[in-house]
Amino acid sequence: MENRITELFKIKYPIIQAGMIWCSGWRLASAVSNAGGLGIIGSGSMYPEVLKEHVKKCKAATNKPFAVNLPLLYPDSEKHVETIIEEKVPIVFSSAGSPKKWTPLLKENGITVVHVVASSVLAKKVQLAGCDAVVAEGFEAGGHNGREETTTMCLIPQAVNAVDIPVIAAGGIGTGRTMTAAFAMGAEGVQIGSRFVATPESSAHEYFKNAVIEAKEGDTKLSLKKLVPVRLLRNQFFEDVQALEAKGAEGGELLELLGRGRSKKGMFEGDMIEGELEIGQISGYIDAMKPAGQIVQEIVNEFNLVAEDLGSYRL
Amino acid sequence: MENRITELFKIKYPIIQAGMIWCSGWRLASAVSNAGGLGIIGSGSMYPEVLKEHVKKCKAATNKPFAVNLPLLYPDSEKHVETIIEEKVPIVFSSAGSPKKWTPLLKENGITVVHVVASSVLAKKVQLAGCDAVVAEGFEAGGHNGREETTTMCLIPQAVNAVDIPVIAAGGIGTGRTMTAAFAMGAEGVQIGSRFVATPESSAHEYFKNAVIEAKEGDTKLSLKKLVPVRLLRNQFFEDVQALEAKGAEGGELLELLGRGRSKKGMFEGDMIEGELEIGQISGYIDAMKPAGQIVQEIVNEFNLVAEDLGSYRL
Repeated sequence: MENRITELFKIKYPIIQAGMIWCSGWRLASAVSNAGGLGIIGSGSMYPEVLKEHVKKCKAATNKPFAVNLPLLYPDSEKHVETIIEEKVPIVFSSAGSPKKWTPLLKENGITVVHVVASSVLAKKVQLAGCDAVVAEGFEAGGHNGREETTTMCLIPQAVNAVDIPVIAAGGIGTGRTMTAAFAMGAEGVQIGSRFVATPESSAHEYFKNAVIEAKEGDTKLSLKKLVPVRLLRNQFFEDVQALEAKGAEGGELLELLGRGRSKKGMFEGDMIEGELEIGQISGYIDAMKPAGQIVQEIVNEFNLVAEDLGSYRL
Repeated sequence: MENRITELFKIKYPIIQAGMIWCSGWRLASAVSNAGGLGIIGSGSMYPEVLKEHVKKCKAATNKPFAVNLPLLYPDSEKHVETIIEEKVPIVFSSAGSPKKWTPLLKENGITVVHVVASSVLAKKVQLAGCDAVVAEGFEAGGHNGREETTTMCLIPQAVNAVDIPVIAAGGIGTGRTMTAAFAMGAEGVQIGSRFVATPESSAHEYFKNAVIEAKEGDTKLSLKKLVPVRLLRNQFFEDVQALEAKGAEGGELLELLGRGRSKKGMFEGDMIEGELEIGQISGYIDAMKPAGQIVQEIVNEFNLVAEDLGSYRL
């Protein structure tokens, strides 16, 4: 069935793969797009020439729509915007910054723009900035997150009430059941990150993929709240952060511990001890490596079964 | 329609009102039970003779089943158990302690026993202890909560997979849409606390009810993590806790700030400055005082509409 999200992106299923640093290059994005969802290249960990290469390869690997995620606070975002326009990328998901910054220019160039937020107050600003849709991302999501700690279950109903543009739910979603839950709350699409990390097409290091598969409930925590809150998987670096935070360390000390390049070290180079490992709470039940296209199809099948079951249920 | 929860409790709707300190006495419990849900008397803020009085009054006010919530770490729990058995209370929801402590005695006396947990590992222990059902409560819930910070969206699917007994979802639920979401994830009942605070039947102070109605998204936070984590509503006491925690204060200092009787002072006596105010994240969208029975009926109506809509939706 069509809805506002499938129509907006010209895709078959309103299932969007999140643009994740070090995990989602052209292989993952094209696999998800080819399966009928929307694949996203995560530009936040790419130099300008690397993004250009990934966009070109993605176009060669799929004739379906795909998107680029653009974290606005990253130093190369201006050059990334040039690449996006030059290469005629049809859709941009921007995040981590003001939606007013690039939306007008992108829209002038015929690009569909979506912005990611963690509160319904910010969702309204996204609508005001002229974006076509908004991703509302709950506390349980991996990676960077909001300070208000509003969970997907509480955020989605409030975001849906706050705006007229379609809401894409993110955080805690990785199965057909959880996608059905998001739709019950009024979302018209879902954005799924963590579930796509443990795929052959993800560019994450094999050790990180295995760590995600082995992670148990309670193994992630929103950390570094005095810098930029980020959900991390438990390892030695995580324990070091926890210990420093418990002592009341300020941002400067945390920044010193964090240093530079830790996420690359962890997620891309496979340093499971000292690396920074960003993943969502659903890692607790991810227990197998599967091709991205199979994940999309399993979600679709489960959604249809669960929705049908609910359809015959009356209180 | 019947399901395992309506059959277990002999109720019409699988909607359970949480037993909350200072808020849920016989008036609220009987109102919810009379509306077809399951009302619960919260014994955690009651002296033994007070609980006895509330149970007697509840029996006089409804001929429907109701329950008592029994926080096992409270000093009077043994006397509360005596009252429950003497007064033939049909159902007990225990929490905050080991389900092995009272379940055998309560079951011997023909009482249905449910235990509240915040993780699927603990849900398995609840099943092993012989309980009839388990409440899985997510991070967004009001009051005391788990240390793992697992949200309802992530907890329910894992709890449902972990046990064979029925799972009741709690945390972030207060509408028909969110109840449908919980059922999509496999829950067979919902437990709702915060939504029932702003009712004429709740014994909370008028000022606290108004504060819940006025609360906005982001106005609660899981606090006092070095003591027992508890979700609090923003006020001066909350700010004092935040400031102390940011400095890395240890449990002793926090306990000194907390002192004794702060939750009564806030929720029951209406001290909105110095009192401890326990409420869930859904307070962000509670915007009117409504009778408890009307809330139950609105949830039922919305659930039926949303479930019907999903029934005709196919990806």
